[in-house]
Amino acid sequence: MRIARFSIDGTVGFGVVEGEATGDGGLALEVIKGHPFAEFERSGRRVPLSEVRLLPPVLPSKVVAIGRNYREHAREMGNEVPGTPVVFFKPSTSVVGPGDPVVYPSFSGEVHHEAELAVVIGRMCSQVPRERAADVILGYTCANDITARDIQRTEEQWARAKGFDTSCPLGPWVETALDPAAASDLAIMCTVNGEQRQLGRTGEMVRGIEELIVHITQAMTLLPGDVILTGTPAGVGPLNPGDEVAVTIEGIGTLTNKVIKRD
Amino acid sequence: MRIARFSIDGTVGFGVVEGEATGDGGLALEVIKGHPFAEFERSGRRVPLSEVRLLPPVLPSKVVAIGRNYREHAREMGNEVPGTPVVFFKPSTSVVGPGDPVVYPSFSGEVHHEAELAVVIGRMCSQVPRERAADVILGYTCANDITARDIQRTEEQWARAKGFDTSCPLGPWVETALDPAAASDLAIMCTVNGEQRQLGRTGEMVRGIEELIVHITQAMTLLPGDVILTGTPAGVGPLNPGDEVAVTIEGIGTLTNKVIKRD
Repeated sequence: MRIARFSIDGTVGFGVVEGEATGDGGLALEVIKGHPFAEFERSGRRVPLSEVRLLPPVLPSKVVAIGRNYREHAREMGNEVPGTPVVFFKPSTSVVGPGDPVVYPSFSGEVHHEAELAVVIGRMCSQVPRERAADVILGYTCANDITARDIQRTEEQWARAKGFDTSCPLGPWVETALDPAAASDLAIMCTVNGEQRQLGRTGEMVRGIEELIVHITQAMTLLPGDVILTGTPAGVGPLNPGDEVAVTIEGIGTLTNKVIKRD
Repeated sequence: MRIARFSIDGTVGFGVVEGEATGDGGLALEVIKGHPFAEFERSGRRVPLSEVRLLPPVLPSKVVAIGRNYREHAREMGNEVPGTPVVFFKPSTSVVGPGDPVVYPSFSGEVHHEAELAVVIGRMCSQVPRERAADVILGYTCANDITARDIQRTEEQWARAKGFDTSCPLGPWVETALDPAAASDLAIMCTVNGEQRQLGRTGEMVRGIEELIVHITQAMTLLPGDVILTGTPAGVGPLNPGDEVAVTIEGIGTLTNKVIKRD
């Protein structure tokens, strides 16, 4: 099931997206009563997807991201695969939705795209054992871990390089029909202005989804709506104002954002 | 004015703390109507401070922390003062209040105290120029940037070393009567089981409060209740289960927490 968060006529709600994901043309959204983190009912009210504004599918209290989790990407950055996962945060203020602008930050001259599979947490959890990891997942969406590469090189901690406003596009919706095994066997792609830049498979992750949940929740509680970014495949590269960047993950959908200059 | 967040009989509120801060004995709390981030009135209802449970004085969406902002502390860690501030995040799930336990994390064998002056943001802000920096501050409180030092040494990004649950005690209240100049001329101290471990002055900060606000908000929006930790003076050292750690900042108050083992 694909659960989207949307606004229409000034109100915000959740809905189930129906139809084929090959374009917006045939897609409709059935409004749900209740909240996707709890029991909910379909309302029967359908709206064409083209008439709503899609929002970030969740409002994470935090985004926990993993660096160098694809071998070929670690190599292209001149790094080894780390002995323990590289864990960093992107704050809630960095999150934007599908179609929202990515604002090129004033303090950087080299901003990169990083297509990533995002895991959406469905329930509060800590100290999760591996055999329970699948139970804490609501579903999966696409993410773009936008990075000020020049700042990442010069600042030891990545809070500014990877935490600036609009640096975490998420969407277009949460796909709940996948289990961790299925989510680890998907094509993941990034295009800029329609040209392919990154192409990989989620199965290339060095650490899998369940291992990451164990590792993260050993240290910290995850809340419903929190998001784990699982790393990016090789092919990262620059974005410039005016570019349209799209992250597509097989079986989930496409997250498209336009890069703009700050006013 | 000292604004505390508290619970009593299952309800949560804010109040103004009155009396001398030399102990809880004479202190009372006058409940306020409204929210300290907006206009509020004093209700006239007074409660002895000993009858309430103090909570973290704010619920930050994020804590933005600064590393190596005191020269002597950078030196004791074997580091230079960095060319640009070291910026990292502590997540909302790391925040606890005065009197709350600090739970020794299972994945570390070396947990350190770091006494810090915390700046509490009062309004949503981004791209703040230096001359407006003072306007976005609600007040100041004490913080303990609890750190798994062994993990900090072995993991390049500090999300686990400094972001684990209970690693960010804040309190006991927000002192709103200080301006940045006054807040930069205070004694700051950390004791463990009554023994002094850290003693410094906030005036030793390499980068001052206003400069940090400019630097951080160049990259990201701060929300009301967000907190900036301004770095720790020299004297950091180990904490063990059973220890009582107290951060005292002149003119603000004392934040006390006990370290416990995980159940």
